[in-house]
Amino acid sequence: MPKSPIAPPQTLQWVGDLPGHVLLIEQTYLPEFRELQVQDVPGMVDAIKRLAVRGAPAIGVAAAFGVLLGAQRRMDASAQDALEGTLEDCKVLAQSRPTAVNLFWALERMETAARTAHSSGLQGQDFARRIQQEALAIFDGDQRTCRLMGEAGAELIQSGMTLLTHCNAGALATAGMGTALAPMYVAHAQGKEIRVFADETRPLLQGSRITAWELNRAGIDVTVITDGMAAKVMQEGRLDAIFVGSDRIAANGDVCNKIGTYGLALAAQHHKVPFYVVAPISTIDLSLPDGSGIPIEERDRQEIAHGLGKQTVPDGVKVYNPAFDVTPAAWVSAIITEVGVLHSPNERAVREAVNGSSSI
Amino acid sequence: MPKSPIAPPQTLQWVGDLPGHVLLIEQTYLPEFRELQVQDVPGMVDAIKRLAVRGAPAIGVAAAFGVLLGAQRRMDASAQDALEGTLEDCKVLAQSRPTAVNLFWALERMETAARTAHSSGLQGQDFARRIQQEALAIFDGDQRTCRLMGEAGAELIQSGMTLLTHCNAGALATAGMGTALAPMYVAHAQGKEIRVFADETRPLLQGSRITAWELNRAGIDVTVITDGMAAKVMQEGRLDAIFVGSDRIAANGDVCNKIGTYGLALAAQHHKVPFYVVAPISTIDLSLPDGSGIPIEERDRQEIAHGLGKQTVPDGVKVYNPAFDVTPAAWVSAIITEVGVLHSPNERAVREAVNGSSSI
Repeated sequence: MPKSPIAPPQTLQWVGDLPGHVLLIEQTYLPEFRELQVQDVPGMVDAIKRLAVRGAPAIGVAAAFGVLLGAQRRMDASAQDALEGTLEDCKVLAQSRPTAVNLFWALERMETAARTAHSSGLQGQDFARRIQQEALAIFDGDQRTCRLMGEAGAELIQSGMTLLTHCNAGALATAGMGTALAPMYVAHAQGKEIRVFADETRPLLQGSRITAWELNRAGIDVTVITDGMAAKVMQEGRLDAIFVGSDRIAANGDVCNKIGTYGLALAAQHHKVPFYVVAPISTIDLSLPDGSGIPIEERDRQEIAHGLGKQTVPDGVKVYNPAFDVTPAAWVSAIITEVGVLHSPNERAVREAVNGSSSI
Repeated sequence: MPKSPIAPPQTLQWVGDLPGHVLLIEQTYLPEFRELQVQDVPGMVDAIKRLAVRGAPAIGVAAAFGVLLGAQRRMDASAQDALEGTLEDCKVLAQSRPTAVNLFWALERMETAARTAHSSGLQGQDFARRIQQEALAIFDGDQRTCRLMGEAGAELIQSGMTLLTHCNAGALATAGMGTALAPMYVAHAQGKEIRVFADETRPLLQGSRITAWELNRAGIDVTVITDGMAAKVMQEGRLDAIFVGSDRIAANGDVCNKIGTYGLALAAQHHKVPFYVVAPISTIDLSLPDGSGIPIEERDRQEIAHGLGKQTVPDGVKVYNPAFDVTPAAWVSAIITEVGVLHSPNERAVREAVNGSSSI
């Protein structure tokens, strides 16, 4: 019988009407739960920069809310000042993180909304109201996308299955129920008994700190392992499927995701464990024929050398810290999107999904 | 031209004559250097359990010294009490770690020495002196074994190669220059230019804290990566060979080693990177036909959940913490021992090496 599910945590939300504020889960302290009220644009820029809010979809929504925080302070301004102030806020917010593609996508939508409102003669509270509508539409769209991916992915999960995930592609990375974790939340709500292994995901431990926190909170059975244990868990025959998110997918289906995903996919391939990538269509970059063109961010040595608040790498020793790796499409059992499941993804299927999605 | 090499650190040694004590490098604090004096059997059991001394061969030597620490306190006891006390110490020390077969091998040698000394009528200081001879013989033997493995392994290393290692199978895991790192020390001393990637090796970070420390100290170029990055480094085509140690090798050549080795060997196999296991003959357990019978120690959740003093796994979330995994012999390019290199190891070659070694 289906359980009464605990809703996934609400990473960020708009509280009140106009004026209102943004309420975030402060992710740098997790697994310690703290909330953060954000009142203005500088506060939102700071929250994004510090990774208080993180995950590509969540950053996009946070930026849209940031634009709204700016606009509601100009309800007494002239129409021209309201527009110019909003465009300036978009510029400032765009500089908060360099990589997340959803940030620029969301800010483009906000900018277009502002220009359209202005040229339609909206001003004062009406202008702010239009900005609010757009921000909430982005928020709602992300929630809907997550739910659709969750429902599609849950069809691949049977009761009794043991799943594994890497990093955090959950509710805390989106405004909704997440990408890779969405199928787990839906399966759990459907009354399916599932068990989840969470790779801790060095260096920043998003798996142990964030994924384990949100799955446990929702009443899903979760066990943390170090990244090097995943292959052993497969060797023991304990895994039925792996679900991960993605930061960018090339036209041929090659998947860029958090470092460690490539080795995980290789082990899954060897052990015949289905390897699922859950990502919205907006993650697919058709301009790249394959994964070799995806730029891999190299991050600071401190994340590895002083990762847990204590020095673990001696001074003078080098560190290599790529944040992502690329898994070949051939090792991906399916890409689960909001417009359907692409089994054994190839370029034709990927292009069709992207082109088809623009008509829904 | 060969460089003047810096000697590898001395992990443990017997200081003084009779009575004397054991001086250890306290490995839980590395890369901060501290030493620890061990005076009695409980102190040695504690040091082994806490991993103040670790690494299969070093644990064997430490246990032998532990037996000596006990024996030197019974120089005024009766012959029978001296024997019985020594046998009891062996039992207590055997319970300090379950997986490393070298521990049991060393304790068996100490037990045999004690029984022989007793039946030869030795007692008092003479009994303790015989125990001391055996412990020092194990210590000397380990140093010699390391050197022989290093020389054999160095023949597989050419100048310009980039190598990778996992955990710490170096000087700090032995009484000598190490197992997996011995070929690197010898190659370096021969003037070969090598570069080494060290997996940090979660949860206890022996790679970043210990391997990087000792290789860097010896002037070898070392770069730390997280465990999840090793497969990517292979994907990038940057690795020429992998050298790891072992805690137990079954008769068919299956290799038990630090958790993460299995996935590493799988990635090496896929990328056609030679995968070498460096281990003394005492690591081989002919009583086990294959690796499935090797007991795998499961360690405390705190190692993962509170790594280095900060909570990273929420309360209530389960943790799975196996300390070792087993790599199939088919993925091992060679086992490098003190009696030679077993290429593509199989049961006949392993048995021949063990039986041949008893005659050298």
